[in-house]
Amino acid sequence: METNDNIQARILKGTRDFLPVQMLQRDYVVNTLVEVFQRYGLEPLTTPAIEYMEVLTRKYGEEGEKLIYRLAYKGGDVLALRYDLTIPLCRVYAMHAKSLPKPFKRYQIQPVWRADRPQKGRLREFYQCDFDVIGSDDMVVDAEIISINHDCMAALGFDRFNIRINNRKVLNALLEYAGIPPSLGPDVLRSVDKLDKSGMETVTTELEKLELSETSINTFIPFLSMKGDPEEVLRELRGILKETPAGVDSLAEMESLFGHLKDFSLPGERYSWDVSLARGLDYYTGPIYETVVEEPNVGSLSGGGRYDKLVGEFTGEDTPATGASIGLERIITVMDEQKMFPETTAVAQVLVVHLGEDYRSHAITIAAALRGAGLKTEVYYHQDRLKKQLTYANKRGIPLVVIAAPDELKEGKVIVRDMATGKQETVPVESAPTHLSDKLSPKK
Amino acid sequence: METNDNIQARILKGTRDFLPVQMLQRDYVVNTLVEVFQRYGLEPLTTPAIEYMEVLTRKYGEEGEKLIYRLAYKGGDVLALRYDLTIPLCRVYAMHAKSLPKPFKRYQIQPVWRADRPQKGRLREFYQCDFDVIGSDDMVVDAEIISINHDCMAALGFDRFNIRINNRKVLNALLEYAGIPPSLGPDVLRSVDKLDKSGMETVTTELEKLELSETSINTFIPFLSMKGDPEEVLRELRGILKETPAGVDSLAEMESLFGHLKDFSLPGERYSWDVSLARGLDYYTGPIYETVVEEPNVGSLSGGGRYDKLVGEFTGEDTPATGASIGLERIITVMDEQKMFPETTAVAQVLVVHLGEDYRSHAITIAAALRGAGLKTEVYYHQDRLKKQLTYANKRGIPLVVIAAPDELKEGKVIVRDMATGKQETVPVESAPTHLSDKLSPKK
Repeated sequence: METNDNIQARILKGTRDFLPVQMLQRDYVVNTLVEVFQRYGLEPLTTPAIEYMEVLTRKYGEEGEKLIYRLAYKGGDVLALRYDLTIPLCRVYAMHAKSLPKPFKRYQIQPVWRADRPQKGRLREFYQCDFDVIGSDDMVVDAEIISINHDCMAALGFDRFNIRINNRKVLNALLEYAGIPPSLGPDVLRSVDKLDKSGMETVTTELEKLELSETSINTFIPFLSMKGDPEEVLRELRGILKETPAGVDSLAEMESLFGHLKDFSLPGERYSWDVSLARGLDYYTGPIYETVVEEPNVGSLSGGGRYDKLVGEFTGEDTPATGASIGLERIITVMDEQKMFPETTAVAQVLVVHLGEDYRSHAITIAAALRGAGLKTEVYYHQDRLKKQLTYANKRGIPLVVIAAPDELKEGKVIVRDMATGKQETVPVESAPTHLSDKLSPKK
Repeated sequence: METNDNIQARILKGTRDFLPVQMLQRDYVVNTLVEVFQRYGLEPLTTPAIEYMEVLTRKYGEEGEKLIYRLAYKGGDVLALRYDLTIPLCRVYAMHAKSLPKPFKRYQIQPVWRADRPQKGRLREFYQCDFDVIGSDDMVVDAEIISINHDCMAALGFDRFNIRINNRKVLNALLEYAGIPPSLGPDVLRSVDKLDKSGMETVTTELEKLELSETSINTFIPFLSMKGDPEEVLRELRGILKETPAGVDSLAEMESLFGHLKDFSLPGERYSWDVSLARGLDYYTGPIYETVVEEPNVGSLSGGGRYDKLVGEFTGEDTPATGASIGLERIITVMDEQKMFPETTAVAQVLVVHLGEDYRSHAITIAAALRGAGLKTEVYYHQDRLKKQLTYANKRGIPLVVIAAPDELKEGKVIVRDMATGKQETVPVESAPTHLSDKLSPKK
């Protein structure tokens, strides 16, 4: 092979290879989340990476649409790469509603692509983890999504988090109350959405730029400080919105939602009502929510809301839908920084080593028996000194080593070494699987 | 929303949505395979969907290269979608060898894309499931791959299968022995690869078209009938190849490989030597193998081989590598046809139903307790008659139903119904989690 012909091994910026050490962390998170989803009877869905461009257009706003990757395709249709998991879900429901359970509860964990300029926290390929319920407008379903969200965070080991809840209908009623025209609603909410990052002053300036009246601004701005205990916020808002039918309805919705959260046995300190929560996406129509970890202050790790108009983009009929997205990439980063991952660095639980070529066959056969007992077992094949083989186990983080050594094998025995303590025991070959399983069982 | 504006919900031909019923089958297969891979200490790897086109070029032959999906990208570099998992693995090894264990043993289950004309069994998006070992030329590693292959098939429930094994070096020695010029080797092997489908006559005709001498053809063709017990084939080939050094070496390699398979405790009837096995890909350099299920006759379900030159395309240095690919899509089809899947049709194990709106809160709280005990529990939220709620459980295939009924709840009890037998029991609310876990435990 001529060296000149070599192709440089390289990878597109903003995309990533996940090597085993990273994959073990990712798999830990994904498996934990899937376990929670399944505990609620949510079912898995997978959709293709390639979608017709027209399925994706007019869904993500002007800025979003520019970031959709298009394929170079000779046919008449423009093909694109999946931009999120919500639109594919709506497409699937529009195509298959009849054969799906009603309501349809699904989770989906797949990569999405954005033709963005890569920078810290902004990638061209990243994984989304969504769970949604389509086909029910009952607030109990929004409560269930929030409860799942809670259980996911708890299962991953987060303790000091708070799920902030609000409602687009309440926000719209407050905009109306403040005399802000509905046409300006989306712009106002986009400003409000940035409140956490930009502060109240910037939001006020932005609202002034929208040419709202001073009275409107002065009426609306104080609402954004209303947050905390749902019952108190409800009481306050009832005083304000008691004259507007839409306002009264939106508050009834919230009362129902918070009532259900109690049925779900959700600890009261894990959620609150935050009237300043707006969420960036235009398509929300009802309750919205966001999980914030406050200590350490790492910002929002998941969020979602109700979007009753999106399926209708395909079917022409409004279809109630609500759901959330877990910020998988962000969560993995935070858990790594906060050392929240179990210490496993290797898949293998046992390494079988051998002293000299004549004993390798024994090592392989012993490993086969260990695997038969369900033990994750690697064999050190290369002819090396024992010390080097043990160093390998140590470096990889494999907790137990079985040594196939001549004297012990003659008596039908092997040496079992606990790498953490360095303690060695001699056990009969035939009882090695049980012996090792017992040693590992507290960890299994 | 105006109906005229609706976008048709549709999907590109040759790509698929996997609805929950299909996903449960797919997850079953994937989880089974991952468990086997991990039992051997193999570790997970994930690579991005998008690769630089130049990384993929000159790897898949002229026909293959035409099928690579390209992205519409404004920059100077051409971007493409992953065509298989082998080249990305080689790229990863070329980039990260220093930080990876040596040898590097990984599994990878991800979709690949082919811009092909879709037809039965030929898709534009499908999943590959590969496992490979990079960095060792020891035949024990090829034996391990074959052993993993065996365990995968067995774990999925296949019993009448046979792993056919051969070696490109042996085939090359036989070509040389028959006086066939090395330059024609790849063409001859591509013909031989089609032997199963096209028969001996067609192969002979194709070899004649390559303008091989009659003597060459008459010498070579009989080799293709040599198959069966490895020791017998070895003895026969030793007689033929005893004068050629390359032939003698290749047979020593096979003797070593088959010796190791015995160490791995692989049942003798599950593998054989088949001199007619050629495998389509040009890049194999040593042992090759293919798993065939003969009853029912469903053809090849997995295959692989050694490819010691492929990593060198990036690094300029030959790096030993061997591995196999499980035909995930084909296996799922066959298992479905042969009814090899467990009967599960829903994620949920328990459905909690309620009689009237006043009891829904109880149903939700009971479900929360069941989930706390690890039971996969769905709540029937809608106000419906009991019969309709039970029909739903039946249709979905949820095995157990908990009924929150007024009289029983007054006494702190719920009714547990076994959907298979129709038998009902009344149990105290607080012991419901244990009671239901016990009922499900033989299945868990």
